[in-house]
Amino acid sequence: MLTLDKIYHAKYVLKQVIRETDVIHAPKINPESNIWLKTENLQITGSFKVRGAYYKMSCLSDEEKAKGVIACSAGNHAQGVALAASKNGIRSIICLPDGAPISKVEATKSYGAEVCLVKGVYDDAYKEALRQRDEHGYTFVHPFDDENVIAGQGTIGLELIEQIPDMEAVIVPIGGGGLISGVAYAIKSLNPKIKVYGVQAAGAPSMYNAVRDGQIERLDGVSTIADGIAVKEPGENTFRLVSDYVDDIVTVTDDEISAAILALMEQQKLVTEGAGAVPVAAAMFNKVPVKDKKTVCLLSGGNIDVTILSRVIKRGLLMTGRNSTLNIELIDKPGQLMDVSRIIAELGGNVISIHHERANEGSDVNGCYLRIVLETRNYEHIEEIKNALKSNGFKLSGD
Amino acid sequence: MLTLDKIYHAKYVLKQVIRETDVIHAPKINPESNIWLKTENLQITGSFKVRGAYYKMSCLSDEEKAKGVIACSAGNHAQGVALAASKNGIRSIICLPDGAPISKVEATKSYGAEVCLVKGVYDDAYKEALRQRDEHGYTFVHPFDDENVIAGQGTIGLELIEQIPDMEAVIVPIGGGGLISGVAYAIKSLNPKIKVYGVQAAGAPSMYNAVRDGQIERLDGVSTIADGIAVKEPGENTFRLVSDYVDDIVTVTDDEISAAILALMEQQKLVTEGAGAVPVAAAMFNKVPVKDKKTVCLLSGGNIDVTILSRVIKRGLLMTGRNSTLNIELIDKPGQLMDVSRIIAELGGNVISIHHERANEGSDVNGCYLRIVLETRNYEHIEEIKNALKSNGFKLSGD
Repeated sequence: MLTLDKIYHAKYVLKQVIRETDVIHAPKINPESNIWLKTENLQITGSFKVRGAYYKMSCLSDEEKAKGVIACSAGNHAQGVALAASKNGIRSIICLPDGAPISKVEATKSYGAEVCLVKGVYDDAYKEALRQRDEHGYTFVHPFDDENVIAGQGTIGLELIEQIPDMEAVIVPIGGGGLISGVAYAIKSLNPKIKVYGVQAAGAPSMYNAVRDGQIERLDGVSTIADGIAVKEPGENTFRLVSDYVDDIVTVTDDEISAAILALMEQQKLVTEGAGAVPVAAAMFNKVPVKDKKTVCLLSGGNIDVTILSRVIKRGLLMTGRNSTLNIELIDKPGQLMDVSRIIAELGGNVISIHHERANEGSDVNGCYLRIVLETRNYEHIEEIKNALKSNGFKLSGD
Repeated sequence: MLTLDKIYHAKYVLKQVIRETDVIHAPKINPESNIWLKTENLQITGSFKVRGAYYKMSCLSDEEKAKGVIACSAGNHAQGVALAASKNGIRSIICLPDGAPISKVEATKSYGAEVCLVKGVYDDAYKEALRQRDEHGYTFVHPFDDENVIAGQGTIGLELIEQIPDMEAVIVPIGGGGLISGVAYAIKSLNPKIKVYGVQAAGAPSMYNAVRDGQIERLDGVSTIADGIAVKEPGENTFRLVSDYVDDIVTVTDDEISAAILALMEQQKLVTEGAGAVPVAAAMFNKVPVKDKKTVCLLSGGNIDVTILSRVIKRGLLMTGRNSTLNIELIDKPGQLMDVSRIIAELGGNVISIHHERANEGSDVNGCYLRIVLETRNYEHIEEIKNALKSNGFKLSGD
């Protein structure tokens, strides 16, 4: 049974282990609201997960501690369990599907866990973890559907009540629902006037569907860049707690999540993973009623692969006119490339790459084709360059 | 005359305006040291500059306040002055060279300044600012060589003494020297045992040269990605203070700065600009003697253009084997591209782009040339893919 007592106890236990992460004002995220960010992306291990994992382990009996713990995760939960176990002097085994990214495997090992790679997908690794639990007597640490884990995550709610006592709303990511269950229970128990909103990825709306339909359902598949909340089925405890304590659940698209990740980097100098950015996406795109309200967005984590981050930035640059590709048809005679280069340079465009090719099928036998990737300032700047090229007699294809 | 009193007064004045930024443990930056990060990149306006600018303005007479202030900057100082003036109800004019990036101009305007674009380079904008000062009686706010500005920056030193009382060393970026002058003065006045190290970009070593030679010199040019500390000549006050209170100055290269920016993003979820990352570069590459020492790196700012950030990530990915380009010579017959694709897919390489072209000069008339850009896990993974291609009869050029 989850109680406020338990969450306060978790706060006491966690005091020496975790960081009380800062809350930072972010006035530009949505100028019509008053947005603040709870920076759990700056938590140790890069996500809030260590809170629940650590508190769960601190509650084990000496006998359970001696046997060790097992978990199944390719993400933040794995790192949280690994670090929490190390700090408690407990052995930990993490089962991962064998296709898991090397970087995640290495991160999990670096926090002191033994990694067990299981052939197949997540569900296979999960079954293997349960099998080993039964065989060796390990304690299985569930990523969300466990009251001690939920109590650990709920400590964020207690911190927020102290850090921003006059907050009017808090927006929280939902995967399996462990984080929001703890946070909503803590906040609503202390001040039921504060609104608690949940956010899921549009490509993984398991809790959204469950609450809408009044029963737990299992999604056939999930697809989102917010891999940390790509969960097919909510837990029984979390479904009940979310139904009772959360005011509303909304969904955001991958494009909205990308825009939120980029805004957090540019405006707030914070790196967030997809799951961590969904509350900001919801606030930016007015998915929740936060106009004129003092609102906290809970940035749950920052463990995003830089390769993906690089793609998110690239997409953001394209979407804001700061990167563009021009396809120019040239007559194949000397000096043409020089002319194009000159026009672009004079207008302050910065050439990133050039691809120059002759005699494509679509063009004249004497023609050739020039594709230029440019750094530009905005859409107006792109138009300015295009118009200058056209007025100098160049033909732009696809325009 | 700079005094500890003045810095304490600045702290009192700034209390309601600026954030006391968090100090965060960063154990992976240099495992042989004990590194902590002072996150002034999370300060309002994205840099520490607002501290000095605000304190300077608070010290003006009512008459001076009524006339307004003027400054010359294309960067963090402009935004700091603009915001500080707005908060003091003072008119501010910022002179910028007309080639300044639109994003900087917009950011400066958004904090409430009037922007005056001056034809030419920085020195022209500087002269124009002085001319307008003389004509209209504005107060010129120097970016670093001003005791009140230095006192404002020195408040970071006071915060550090309280936040990490047992620190043994602090590493600070140096451009004109205003930040390190205030921080070193405050820290050394309270605890002379704490070492203070300064870091400059190898492409802009003005203070480094001045201290080495015992006199101020002017660099002919500067070249570094750390544009925030690309200063040609130190100030007279700052030169004297640095000479008296700083233990040593070192330099770091652009590649080292890039590696530091990437490490801060991946390990700490923090976005820093080049100037803000130089202390971490110095700590990562053992430029300063911090082995086994509790060391604070002062992250001075986070205002980096995402276009540049994107390039830094790209370079970092290349340098760590997570992005690679293969040049493959094919015989021009059907099925070759399919075979290459299959081999890469089976080994888990992720194709980003393909460029397929026939009959280059260097190759056989029937030959063609395939350039594939791949996401890979590390150098071993690249070798694995290359070897599989070779053992299937493909020839890799440049290998």
